[in-house]
Amino acid sequence: MNTSDGEFVWCIPDAYFTKDGDSRIPSHESISILNTGVKSANLKINFYFEDDRPAIKNIAVCINPESCVHLRLDKPEQIGNIKIPYDTPYGIKIESDVRVVVQYSRAYTGTVPMALMTTIAYSNPIKQSEKN
Amino acid sequence: MNTSDGEFVWCIPDAYFTKDGDSRIPSHESISILNTGVKSANLKINFYFEDDRPAIKNIAVCINPESCVHLRLDKPEQIGNIKIPYDTPYGIKIESDVRVVVQYSRAYTGTVPMALMTTIAYSNPIKQSEKN
Amino acid sequence: MNTSDGEFVWCIPDAYFTKDGDSRIPSHESISILNTGVKSANLKINFYFEDDRPAIKNIAVCINPESCVHLRLDKPEQIGNIKIPYDTPYGIKIESDVRVVVQYSRAYTGTVPMALMTTIAYSNPIKQSEKN
Amino acid sequence: MNTSDGEFVWCIPDAYFTKDGDSRIPSHESISILNTGVKSANLKINFYFEDDRPAIKNIAVCINPESCVHLRLDKPEQIGNIKIPYDTPYGIKIESDVRVVVQYSRAYTGTVPMALMTTIAYSNPIKQSEKN
Repeated sequence: MNTSDGEFVWCIPDAYFTKDGDSRIPSHESISILNTGVKSANLKINFYFEDDRPAIKNIAVCINPESCVHLRLDKPEQIGNIKIPYDTPYGIKIESDVRVVVQYSRAYTGTVPMALMTTIAYSNPIKQSEKN
Repeated sequence: MNTSDGEFVWCIPDAYFTKDGDSRIPSHESISILNTGVKSANLKINFYFEDDRPAIKNIAVCINPESCVHLRLDKPEQIGNIKIPYDTPYGIKIESDVRVVVQYSRAYTGTVPMALMTTIAYSNPIKQSEKN
Repeated sequence: MNTSDGEFVWCIPDAYFTKDGDSRIPSHESISILNTGVKSANLKINFYFEDDRPAIKNIAVCINPESCVHLRLDKPEQIGNIKIPYDTPYGIKIESDVRVVVQYSRAYTGTVPMALMTTIAYSNPIKQSEKN
Repeated sequence: MNTSDGEFVWCIPDAYFTKDGDSRIPSHESISILNTGVKSANLKINFYFEDDRPAIKNIAVCINPESCVHLRLDKPEQIGNIKIPYDTPYGIKIESDVRVVVQYSRAYTGTVPMALMTTIAYSNPIKQSEKN
């Protein structure tokens, strides 16, 4: 019986973190993870950069059963104390040991007022069928 | 013969409702559901939160055949009289007894003017193949 | 040999057309259709509304081979002389006789400056596998 | 063993490049490509236009292994010295010799402040299954 929704592998190619922002609502990005199942989801998160800059791999994050977490990428305490560099294009890969659903959003407040963008992340049907 | 489009299970990890907003157009989120088939769609909607806050489950909503409804999440009368708490990250799961298509959008008017974001929700191909 | 990309059926649940807008760039929605193949794509477009309002069906649009068209939904001459009503939530279904890719975007200029949102439309894998 | 994520063919129907923009942050579009695998990704990019304007094909771009590149479409040096015309609707197809993930984003600064939109591009499951 499968009570969990989503996939095991998720990718986000367009992540970007800027220092700009107003004082009330700083610019920020978030990865939102929905775990509809009855088991905790143990995530491993990788960050990829341009050129020859090495990837940062296997940042561990745990999501409770039947819960939804919005991870703020500008808050190192939420992503294994990793400090994402400013003004640097990067990409994200998330692997989970149970099915989850992942959405990426960005709020830009570098010029008041706000700009928003969001997308469901890309999920990997190949890995899914191998796991099943 | 299958005259309906879409899937049976849809998920939205990044939902967030804020009290900010101007008087003319309040900030709001919507779940838009398209039912292209000839049968009514009976939906059950779950809301998931962070930490140990329990999920709210099985909110019933009906969508007429060959119609499209934009459910406003800031209007309790449209979602079974549930009042979504302010400034609280949450996620959404929607199950339907017939195929439908679901899109999530957010309009933020906390600072004039408006910011918009949208994405087709994530649909669950696993449950789909089981149902077929 | 299949030289065309995409699917045969596409759905957009969250369409909405507003009269607001500044004089230079009016608020508008667009359906962008990419036809990468060597045959013209003959589209039939349906519009669905809330409540018991009847759907508008089978609006015909043709897309040239190896071309990309951004249909403006506020311009009746681009969608079979259909006039989409203002301030009315609606949904869209697009069927094509060859594979195409569809993206929906909205630009809101009711308050200067602009808000933007976009998403790849939902495509129907069921109908696709039946056609293949 | 498959260490790479994503698909081989990606499409973006709604691309549009405008001359507007403020001096600090010009309006721009980007294609973000994430290559999580251990081999370089050799891309060929096609651009499609409205009417009978011929497509521009097979622009070559290489993405390093385990890296993520945000290609700016307003910078000809990043896309084979192609100069995308202003104020012209167009679409994009990307083919890769290894699996990659592609996201499209647009930042509009024609009126200060900024508007943002993003979506994971459409990927072609048909071509994928043929390659596997």
